[in-house]
Amino acid sequence: MGEFDLIARYFQRPTRAGSGVALGVGDDCALLAPAPGMQLAVSSDMLVEGRHFFADVYPAHLGHKALAVNLSDLAACGAEPLAFTLALALPRVDAVWLQGFADGLLALADAHGCQLVGGDTTQGPLNICITVFGQVPAGRALLRSGTQAGDDIWVSGRTGQARLALDALRGQIHADDALLTRLRQRLERPMPRLALGRRLVGIASSAIDVSDGLLGDLSHILAASRVGARIDVDAATDLLAGGARLASAGLDRGLLMRCALAGGDDYELVFTAAPAERAAVRQAGSDSATRVTRIGSVEAAPGLRLVDGQGQAVRGQFPAFDHFA
Amino acid sequence: MGEFDLIARYFQRPTRAGSGVALGVGDDCALLAPAPGMQLAVSSDMLVEGRHFFADVYPAHLGHKALAVNLSDLAACGAEPLAFTLALALPRVDAVWLQGFADGLLALADAHGCQLVGGDTTQGPLNICITVFGQVPAGRALLRSGTQAGDDIWVSGRTGQARLALDALRGQIHADDALLTRLRQRLERPMPRLALGRRLVGIASSAIDVSDGLLGDLSHILAASRVGARIDVDAATDLLAGGARLASAGLDRGLLMRCALAGGDDYELVFTAAPAERAAVRQAGSDSATRVTRIGSVEAAPGLRLVDGQGQAVRGQFPAFDHFA
Repeated sequence: MGEFDLIARYFQRPTRAGSGVALGVGDDCALLAPAPGMQLAVSSDMLVEGRHFFADVYPAHLGHKALAVNLSDLAACGAEPLAFTLALALPRVDAVWLQGFADGLLALADAHGCQLVGGDTTQGPLNICITVFGQVPAGRALLRSGTQAGDDIWVSGRTGQARLALDALRGQIHADDALLTRLRQRLERPMPRLALGRRLVGIASSAIDVSDGLLGDLSHILAASRVGARIDVDAATDLLAGGARLASAGLDRGLLMRCALAGGDDYELVFTAAPAERAAVRQAGSDSATRVTRIGSVEAAPGLRLVDGQGQAVRGQFPAFDHFA
Repeated sequence: MGEFDLIARYFQRPTRAGSGVALGVGDDCALLAPAPGMQLAVSSDMLVEGRHFFADVYPAHLGHKALAVNLSDLAACGAEPLAFTLALALPRVDAVWLQGFADGLLALADAHGCQLVGGDTTQGPLNICITVFGQVPAGRALLRSGTQAGDDIWVSGRTGQARLALDALRGQIHADDALLTRLRQRLERPMPRLALGRRLVGIASSAIDVSDGLLGDLSHILAASRVGARIDVDAATDLLAGGARLASAGLDRGLLMRCALAGGDDYELVFTAAPAERAAVRQAGSDSATRVTRIGSVEAAPGLRLVDGQGQAVRGQFPAFDHFA
């Protein structure tokens, strides 16, 4: 048994029966058994050093984030996590790194009842590829394509904190230690909105998770549903400004607006629902202890129209988003 | 849309309905719907340049092999392929390379009705991670743990040709152009034994695919089933010698034996079945147009005993396998 087989031992756990997993790690395939009437939701993400994380990230935070970004895709579909596979290329076997990575990864997995059922380890430049499996009632998954003109647009939590953390770590903005610690938590340990996503099944008309930025990811919903939208940029900016005691940090409001609308790496949900569902959406937020805020509405005309709190058009401040206008 | 989003276009196909896939590429998750009474078999493999393939491999052959090694895991479980995800890290966007890779990958996928349903592309050192999904009747998957003393041990096809190709490419043995072409086909374009695997459900008591070498992979069955085995090394060697018109190549029999027993990269199936199933195994081979050969038997005593065609012990020729003896 080579050292790369031994690695697998850091990640092995006994299979828990009765949780959608019929056979876990140790054979040619794992066997999944979704409950009757359920479809299996599948998503896969690959993380590469330098592009998705810094070389000096805490291994436990990296393990957490590698699974979190995948679980966030399940949340966006309204799926319940069942299991995941982990493929890992490592330049060398470093026991301290592996233990930390496994601790962070498996703590998040345990918190969501998501079992590691298989994978692969090999020598090579550091690369982490996780494929995650969840179940969702057949035909009821939240898709990008389900919204129509008149629907409200909602966002969970606050977007922009992860980008502020990145800017602070790069020295582009100043944040004191206490603030940086809070912001960095959002960058390195995002919490996938699984509880909210599941409660939005049957309520929301479409959903996506925010990985590339609020407006950029919303635009995928608009394209898939062949509609446009009006977004209250002040509402999204106020959300960010109101979090993590940012007001006292003296940060420019234009910066906050850009981070809230286009920061990325948030792993919040942006979703749509008919106005008749407002109480149900708020209840879903309350039941899942997740802030939900209405930030705009879906319109028939294609394109993305940005307005301020008074409904006046906001132009020229987001050159990166001109091609949506 | 960045160039790494454009990559996805090389791989996109319309989703075929009614084939276990409810939603393909383009949303946060794909949705799989195994037929009623079926479990989902899942396997994931990561391929890294320099370790799993040469930098100068034909892209189409690499695309083929990356999926083939995953499909081989489904074959070993007796599962029918449904779908796969592809995560790809590339140092740069090379249209010719991508088109070749996609052609080889999708030709094999189409041949087995296995749909690409999602994945990820990113910039980084070349890395290919495929996760494959199949379905198998609930509780009937072929596992490593199912054999017992008295069972026959069988192998599909011939093992050792991929290793001979590797040795020839490295200049360690001489093979003329015609022979090298035939051997190289086995190294670079292995054909997963899916048709045989499915027909062995209900007949074989255990199975595994040969990726690390016949004896090495058989040892995983023996360990999982807590048994030992007796292997006729002449039978396995004769299989290799009889293929690809090797007899005239003047290769040393000791070399052929080592390649047949420990070469690796074969993607044949080694499996066990009760002696009462011999006719059924041969029928499964015939129905799937796959050679099946009996090469030994399972024994209660732990360990692996190598014997020649006359039943005499063969010792000292396979130092790498002493720890099984």
